[in-house]
Amino acid sequence: MNESIHNVDTGRLIVQGADRPGIVASVSGVLTRYGANIVSLDQSSSDPSGGRFFQRTVFHLPGLAARLPALQDALEVELGEELGLDFRLVEASRHKRAALFVSKMDHCLLDLLWRQRRGELPMTVRMVVSNHPELAGEVRQFGIPFFHVPVEKGNKAAAEKEQLNLVKGNVDLVVLARYMQILSGDFLDEVGVPVINIHHSFLPAFMGAGPYQRAKERGVKLVGATAHYVTEELDEGPIIEQDVIRVSHGESVRELQRKGADVERLVLSRAVAWHCEDRVIRDGNTTVVF
Amino acid sequence: MNESIHNVDTGRLIVQGADRPGIVASVSGVLTRYGANIVSLDQSSSDPSGGRFFQRTVFHLPGLAARLPALQDALEVELGEELGLDFRLVEASRHKRAALFVSKMDHCLLDLLWRQRRGELPMTVRMVVSNHPELAGEVRQFGIPFFHVPVEKGNKAAAEKEQLNLVKGNVDLVVLARYMQILSGDFLDEVGVPVINIHHSFLPAFMGAGPYQRAKERGVKLVGATAHYVTEELDEGPIIEQDVIRVSHGESVRELQRKGADVERLVLSRAVAWHCEDRVIRDGNTTVVF
Amino acid sequence: MNESIHNVDTGRLIVQGADRPGIVASVSGVLTRYGANIVSLDQSSSDPSGGRFFQRTVFHLPGLAARLPALQDALEVELGEELGLDFRLVEASRHKRAALFVSKMDHCLLDLLWRQRRGELPMTVRMVVSNHPELAGEVRQFGIPFFHVPVEKGNKAAAEKEQLNLVKGNVDLVVLARYMQILSGDFLDEVGVPVINIHHSFLPAFMGAGPYQRAKERGVKLVGATAHYVTEELDEGPIIEQDVIRVSHGESVRELQRKGADVERLVLSRAVAWHCEDRVIRDGNTTVVF
Amino acid sequence: MNESIHNVDTGRLIVQGADRPGIVASVSGVLTRYGANIVSLDQSSSDPSGGRFFQRTVFHLPGLAARLPALQDALEVELGEELGLDFRLVEASRHKRAALFVSKMDHCLLDLLWRQRRGELPMTVRMVVSNHPELAGEVRQFGIPFFHVPVEKGNKAAAEKEQLNLVKGNVDLVVLARYMQILSGDFLDEVGVPVINIHHSFLPAFMGAGPYQRAKERGVKLVGATAHYVTEELDEGPIIEQDVIRVSHGESVRELQRKGADVERLVLSRAVAWHCEDRVIRDGNTTVVF
Repeated sequence: MNESIHNVDTGRLIVQGADRPGIVASVSGVLTRYGANIVSLDQSSSDPSGGRFFQRTVFHLPGLAARLPALQDALEVELGEELGLDFRLVEASRHKRAALFVSKMDHCLLDLLWRQRRGELPMTVRMVVSNHPELAGEVRQFGIPFFHVPVEKGNKAAAEKEQLNLVKGNVDLVVLARYMQILSGDFLDEVGVPVINIHHSFLPAFMGAGPYQRAKERGVKLVGATAHYVTEELDEGPIIEQDVIRVSHGESVRELQRKGADVERLVLSRAVAWHCEDRVIRDGNTTVVF
Repeated sequence: MNESIHNVDTGRLIVQGADRPGIVASVSGVLTRYGANIVSLDQSSSDPSGGRFFQRTVFHLPGLAARLPALQDALEVELGEELGLDFRLVEASRHKRAALFVSKMDHCLLDLLWRQRRGELPMTVRMVVSNHPELAGEVRQFGIPFFHVPVEKGNKAAAEKEQLNLVKGNVDLVVLARYMQILSGDFLDEVGVPVINIHHSFLPAFMGAGPYQRAKERGVKLVGATAHYVTEELDEGPIIEQDVIRVSHGESVRELQRKGADVERLVLSRAVAWHCEDRVIRDGNTTVVF
Repeated sequence: MNESIHNVDTGRLIVQGADRPGIVASVSGVLTRYGANIVSLDQSSSDPSGGRFFQRTVFHLPGLAARLPALQDALEVELGEELGLDFRLVEASRHKRAALFVSKMDHCLLDLLWRQRRGELPMTVRMVVSNHPELAGEVRQFGIPFFHVPVEKGNKAAAEKEQLNLVKGNVDLVVLARYMQILSGDFLDEVGVPVINIHHSFLPAFMGAGPYQRAKERGVKLVGATAHYVTEELDEGPIIEQDVIRVSHGESVRELQRKGADVERLVLSRAVAWHCEDRVIRDGNTTVVF
Repeated sequence: MNESIHNVDTGRLIVQGADRPGIVASVSGVLTRYGANIVSLDQSSSDPSGGRFFQRTVFHLPGLAARLPALQDALEVELGEELGLDFRLVEASRHKRAALFVSKMDHCLLDLLWRQRRGELPMTVRMVVSNHPELAGEVRQFGIPFFHVPVEKGNKAAAEKEQLNLVKGNVDLVVLARYMQILSGDFLDEVGVPVINIHHSFLPAFMGAGPYQRAKERGVKLVGATAHYVTEELDEGPIIEQDVIRVSHGESVRELQRKGADVERLVLSRAVAWHCEDRVIRDGNTTVVF
């Protein structure tokens, strides 16, 4: 799942739009004419007649960096103008730049930082932003800047402005790694990059606050976590990944939280890796994950 | 998990009530004085101080059937009167008698009937009741009576009366194996035995009708099923068991239903087995499953 | 995962061979020229330079049955002669014809028969062959011929000859649904169609007989099952699917067998479905599963 | 699963031996006489007649520390002398002291250190011992001593002597957190405390070196990890915990290792937590895990 790292001549082409016959042939035709060898190709249609079309292609092209503009131009003509499709052309060796937002709980944050250091994630963490100061030392040991932006009653708009100053233009992605504040619609409009959140329940069960407490009261036998793109509708954004873990009657809310934390960090890390590898395509309020 | 079958001298004692020091000692003291050897014992307290106490004990006692009444009397004094506890004393060789309610989908029904025929479930299916005639032939091949009780607009009360006539006194358990009618509070009051339902979602997500359709629209990455005791509050009864299965963007609602059906039959069969082995203790709106 | 049923104009094209640039473009070019719309396409290479290439394409082509021969000819030229690739072109509406071999245990057999009856498997069961008579009645209730071919010491060659007479030319697939005899290399050579087996362990752990007994003795915490193509090397054939289930110290060998049976039937059914949907490509002693 | 932390008056009593009637009653009788309230009790017998008996009891006893010696004496008489049973009496608030052995891979080590820092494990890490120097900085940031004991051809006996000097008397447990050296039988005899290892395969599949490479070649669909007590027989010790994760044909050996690492750290952390909570009882070459 990690074909990007260490390969400077690997590219990715993501295509989506209204389905019609011949798209795959057009895409692969262009790539072949430009000397690219397709390494893997995943394609899906929501409906064979009149549905939406999604394709992710990974290809190898010697001298990719130099030849990218010409390929981009050709695709704009053949896919954009002629077929009316949206596409993105990406160099796999260019890692996504990310800001991680966190409050006090460190399990998701540390898992991302540690995977990045091990080279498991095609992502460069540019900064960590927190509404609390506690994790500063931990973050800086990884050699990453830590910014403390307190959010208190009444100063939320100002705090978001400060956050926007930090991240705008500097990152391609914001990851909420257990950031316990709700971001406003204005922030989401302004920030201009995808925002991924980890919610500590198996959405749509236990939307909102206190999901483990409510799971305990409801007597569920599994607790879960959901990574999703953030939208203005709280806990309603497109789901990227989910997983669950078994719990039993003998476990307290605190033990559910601990078990849940293991699921949260794994689900968030998977979602971030897939996003950074351009595997996730948004389709309305759902996602296609190749 | 199936210690009951083939062992005529095996008993089970289920105890629950307000926790206090010394209950385990009292229970095991009585059993030991009566010559029982404890085969397995599971015990749990909701809170060490002032919580609720739950215990399931499996014991071996030569000549159990003859000695049961005396043991029952002793327990009534020592557990009931002196400690204020509720208890149930059960011969493991006495299978629960069950009525299975079903509509048209056969996967949960067949799974229960197969398992019963193979001797996997300590349950005797006394009858199958359906609001549709389609599964009559299938059921009767297992040598089990099939009763067709149509439920139409306006005759629900009459239909429930007929159902009550069939099951009351004849069964210890009603299992709704994809029975697509809502049972009234009156029915539940009257029937006097536990009713287990399989709901085709991971409750509390997608309560109500059409859960797979809604799961598809919400873009979830796992679909699940929930077996629970039926209460007047629809889809709110105590959960016995849950499980999930992974789905992907490429699967239609129909494919979700198929995958979900595999989970439904497994979850329901487990829940029924555990109930019939007296492993499930209701605790308000939750359960303890030993 | 079941795109084949009910769609008479759906075709599948499976391609494999030495990887080289331009294969995807060639394949999709031919399909597009012949008017096919690609519904889904999965492609994989074992290594971007000098590896093996695998592709499964599902396409929609109005009037498929009539146009198949011309498409086959074109592919033979463009893929076979020019690119040196192997390919198979399949009408999705033509179900695989299967023979199920079974001994006494019915759980895998019934699961396949029942899924076939529900329309979940693009497979037509032509016959059930057993070395024991016990399951005849059960099989015939599904309207399927049952042939009893006893296998005793000394008559194995004769029995295999009889089995070959039954299946050769009549089926596209043999499924060993807990058939407890080892098939000879001669049988496998002669039969000329794939043979799928379900092994009652997580291969390569516990190869050979008595896996649950040995799993119990080894104290494993999960038991599993493996569906694989049968080769002359016992339990060494290419693996199609595997799964596991959690077990605990308190469970007897018999209980392990019961839990394992739930995994066996699920794993075998999945493997058979994937095979019948042409999702499984053999690659030496491994498989690619799209 | 973590009832020990923050509760100074919680004790645990682990009992094992030849099964006979009345053990549970005796144990709970003693505890009750000494004023203990049983919080949870798990009991299991390998066979109702003539099997082995296992019990884990968690109890609450005000002033536990002061009253422990008297309770110990009473248990020695009633369980040891009269019933011939082995038992261990433990204060839950006394954390196990552990030495972690590691080579170069940090994922298991860091997971244990993180969990310890968060208070998830009732364990105090006294030292980390490594045959390589690379992880010294990482470990010392947690405030834990790091000892570098190189192991080279010909000096293994001397290295083990140095390791024994470090750990003997100082720790209650040695955890091999991806320590890539085989410990000698002499070391195991001398060290006198349990040694837990994480093996990077689903034992008994792929015993020995290079399991992910061999898993890839065998084409398995799941890879796993196994935590076990170390014995002189390599990879044959009693299994504490196992888990697996799904892999696909498209993943390289390196990707299998990455996915496997997620399972390894989770399985090892669970096994260590359970051991430190006295949930694991060795029974010959298997374990009972309560």
